[in-house]
Amino acid sequence: MARINDNYLKLKAGYLFPEIGRRVKAFTEANPKAQVIRLGIGDVTMPLVPTVVNAFHQGVEDLAKATSFHGYGPEQGYDWLSDIIIEKAYTPLGVELKTSEIFLSDGSKCDSANILDIFDLSNKVAICDPVYPVYNDTNVMVGRSGEVDGKGYYQGIVYMPCTAENNFSPAFPTEKVDLIYLCYPNNPTGTVATKAQLTAWVEFAIENEAIIFFDAAYEAFISEPEIPHSIYEIDGAKKCAIEFRSFSKTAGFTGVRCGLTVVPEALTAISATGEKIALNALWNRRQCTKFNGVSYPVQRAAAAVYSEAGWTEVKEVIAYYMENARLIREGLGAAGIQCYGGINAPYIWLKTPGGLASWDFFDKLLDECHVVGTPGSGFGPSGEGYFRLSAFGSRENVQEAVKRFVKKWGR
Amino acid sequence: MARINDNYLKLKAGYLFPEIGRRVKAFTEANPKAQVIRLGIGDVTMPLVPTVVNAFHQGVEDLAKATSFHGYGPEQGYDWLSDIIIEKAYTPLGVELKTSEIFLSDGSKCDSANILDIFDLSNKVAICDPVYPVYNDTNVMVGRSGEVDGKGYYQGIVYMPCTAENNFSPAFPTEKVDLIYLCYPNNPTGTVATKAQLTAWVEFAIENEAIIFFDAAYEAFISEPEIPHSIYEIDGAKKCAIEFRSFSKTAGFTGVRCGLTVVPEALTAISATGEKIALNALWNRRQCTKFNGVSYPVQRAAAAVYSEAGWTEVKEVIAYYMENARLIREGLGAAGIQCYGGINAPYIWLKTPGGLASWDFFDKLLDECHVVGTPGSGFGPSGEGYFRLSAFGSRENVQEAVKRFVKKWGR
Repeated sequence: MARINDNYLKLKAGYLFPEIGRRVKAFTEANPKAQVIRLGIGDVTMPLVPTVVNAFHQGVEDLAKATSFHGYGPEQGYDWLSDIIIEKAYTPLGVELKTSEIFLSDGSKCDSANILDIFDLSNKVAICDPVYPVYNDTNVMVGRSGEVDGKGYYQGIVYMPCTAENNFSPAFPTEKVDLIYLCYPNNPTGTVATKAQLTAWVEFAIENEAIIFFDAAYEAFISEPEIPHSIYEIDGAKKCAIEFRSFSKTAGFTGVRCGLTVVPEALTAISATGEKIALNALWNRRQCTKFNGVSYPVQRAAAAVYSEAGWTEVKEVIAYYMENARLIREGLGAAGIQCYGGINAPYIWLKTPGGLASWDFFDKLLDECHVVGTPGSGFGPSGEGYFRLSAFGSRENVQEAVKRFVKKWGR
Repeated sequence: MARINDNYLKLKAGYLFPEIGRRVKAFTEANPKAQVIRLGIGDVTMPLVPTVVNAFHQGVEDLAKATSFHGYGPEQGYDWLSDIIIEKAYTPLGVELKTSEIFLSDGSKCDSANILDIFDLSNKVAICDPVYPVYNDTNVMVGRSGEVDGKGYYQGIVYMPCTAENNFSPAFPTEKVDLIYLCYPNNPTGTVATKAQLTAWVEFAIENEAIIFFDAAYEAFISEPEIPHSIYEIDGAKKCAIEFRSFSKTAGFTGVRCGLTVVPEALTAISATGEKIALNALWNRRQCTKFNGVSYPVQRAAAAVYSEAGWTEVKEVIAYYMENARLIREGLGAAGIQCYGGINAPYIWLKTPGGLASWDFFDKLLDECHVVGTPGSGFGPSGEGYFRLSAFGSRENVQEAVKRFVKKWGR
């Protein structure tokens, strides 16, 4: 008799963004004339830049001719893409990586979920709270947790609260942990980790023989020069950290799908017999067996992001979004709303006016201002009373949203 | 202390195709002037058809303009693609499906691997032998097996031998199984299942409360009208089967990446408490949490496959490959080589001349004829003494390969 994976039944409610989608759909169907502004899901709105579009077309054109056709590509991605990423995105940081340490994928959501495949169920996991829901839910699905409690915490997972009280910088776990998820610049809070803070994490991980999963999906939005873009800027990180990166936000690839995972060859974990096993080889085996590489034209498009012209264009789009972030942060801040983030990340994390519960504020903002945001509690219990706004809208929409917001809740 | 998933250490050697790649690379480096013909890995060689190329370009162009930009798409794929697949690929078979029963993905290798996520480890798995290695290896990786024995069988997995002796039609397992992998038209043997045979499998699955994973990646190559293209052509299959399909071979998408999984809403399996749980909801939750949808331009290209012009063009390419299959099958057959498949599938499965071991024949064929094939034993112990040739080459290469083959081994 076929048996389901019962761990799925532990998951509460739907995944956050589909739930937002359902509420917005219900609202717009009931209010077809309302001009709804969506600053909820962290999705980009600007088109691909011209240099990337041209390379994408060229990639498609290659597939139109037998002489330049590409069938199955390497499961790890094409070397020419990995190499340009190393050269343009890592070497300038002083980080040396080998081609074989880069694994291209169809997105870092998949990677940050799939990485669990190569780890034993016995590992203790630490995640921030609030957090990108994928980290939590994939651990529940794989069976690394017990049931959820009344607050929304799953037994067996170590939660590290990040709130205004600790300046969104979690304390080290007091119990022993083996896998630690860090995301900087942070989704959802928009805050960053300094070099000193990341150094402390790397030292903590090495001391505790733990692995850090470092999600750097938003590194391209860092504006302050002293903030690290990669965990590998920290000495010793290659011995304790896997890094995820994405073209989604960097270059507007949310609908195009390309990301990457760095698994340094020096990185090991322990087998049942206590032997040190290279994680690079395990991840390679995982990808070769369960993945079939990234779409070839997509890889061509991704490579163009790091061309001189492509990068200039992409930086302009990022600057556009970050000007949105400034307008939200300063507009709401001037109106007396407590805001965080928005300087090195495209997210503004705000305290809900009047201390409203996050979902109540979501409904109110939608009903009364026709603005969609993301309830902080959707990212974890410590997100309750907070709310995320994304800077990925158009300038007009962002300005209009700020106006409506301030009119309703400004002091 | 971070612990690896020890099940990975049970996997023997490398995954089959990388191993072939390594041997071919070594040979070509040692013999740079040899004209190597690759009929090994089942990769297509013909370019994308014009209608698909145009739609692919149009999809890219949509992303170049803010007014037609597409960011995150539905994790399940766009309805317009699912609906055209239902209309063009299922309705003509008399199979009714709902949009919500179709899950688009970046390929059926990923899907047939990931599907295990929603099932309990306690399920007993039955796979054919020989078989597409992904079915076996992903079960080993997830911990559903013990160690491998001297023959290449993993403890705990039920193998169903498919050889010339049983006409490549496996007997039902004699022990209780819960998850059954079937692939028709078959990779690697190129053989098919009749409607009566599939009906017997559906009845067996329902009687044993087992789930069939039906891999129909090669259905577009079926030439005989009485052979089923979908498991859902069989009454009752929606209660016991998940079907995988792919654009890889159908439309030359091996480098483009698009596949789909059908999970009927009527399909259930049992929870720990004995409750019947809909697998459609579980797979939907899996995909929403661990996957982020298929590249938008790829979905546009895939939809064009099923347009009137697209399908006409695609059928011509399939006919081209199937003429190759005929040339291989008849050429080798006339020379006294025992061949199977190649009528409803792009693979020819042959008995190695002189009863050579599969890898020995691989090396000999490469060394002496400069032709690359796939050793049957790479697909499982019962593939020993067999060899797979793919019909995906160019006409010239196929003819030349047959000539060299017959010259060397013809009677």
